[in-house]
Amino acid sequence: MHKSQLAGMIIDCQTDDLGEAAAFWSAALGLPAVPDSRIDETRYRHLKTRPEELPVEVQRVDHPSRVHLDIESDDKEAEAARLEALGARRVAETIGWIIMEAPTGQRFCIVNPQRANFEQAANRWD
Amino acid sequence: MHKSQLAGMIIDCQTDDLGEAAAFWSAALGLPAVPDSRIDETRYRHLKTRPEELPVEVQRVDHPSRVHLDIESDDKEAEAARLEALGARRVAETIGWIIMEAPTGQRFCIVNPQRANFEQAANRWD
Repeated sequence: MHKSQLAGMIIDCQTDDLGEAAAFWSAALGLPAVPDSRIDETRYRHLKTRPEELPVEVQRVDHPSRVHLDIESDDKEAEAARLEALGARRVAETIGWIIMEAPTGQRFCIVNPQRANFEQAANRWD
Repeated sequence: MHKSQLAGMIIDCQTDDLGEAAAFWSAALGLPAVPDSRIDETRYRHLKTRPEELPVEVQRVDHPSRVHLDIESDDKEAEAARLEALGARRVAETIGWIIMEAPTGQRFCIVNPQRANFEQAANRWD
């Protein structure tokens, strides 16, 4: 048995100025950009949503700008296998996450559990 | 005074088979694809999230697949002007929504209020 759920919406920005990109998205969405010691602030900025809401992050990237979603799981490998069985493709892997591609072409990531409600709210896959 | 907030995450799928695309994303995210009489089901499928969570829709599109976000506002024109002042660009307009482009390149839409919590939760722009 493993568990997973939608973990966040990541706004990937191809920019040299992460602060400026985060300032735009913070103002546009009306979500404060807050310091978060758990993340690498040279690459990420956290936009604060309500605790029960989906987290939103702004990320500095080298590839063209896009929006991607993250799925969190307590077993990333089992989750990748589950998603492959649904038709997704494994693109790349790092220590922290697995990059996948949906049958419809969007890239998304499998990450470790991050949301406070993971234990009680995530889907169980037996 | 007008108000706005993040309204939803839209999974744009370049596909002839919206049902198949929605089935993948429904299973991947563990969110049931439910009938919704308020939307055009030849173009959209609603993935059911908890009431306090961000809505997720799967949309059939002709352009390459992506994920985009929607901002809802009780005054779409004032919201477009506010976002232009922040550096966004107006791309196109229909009766139902305004398509915008962020300074960092992502497309997003301004739509009418849709979330149940709009009145009490949206940001006020004076």
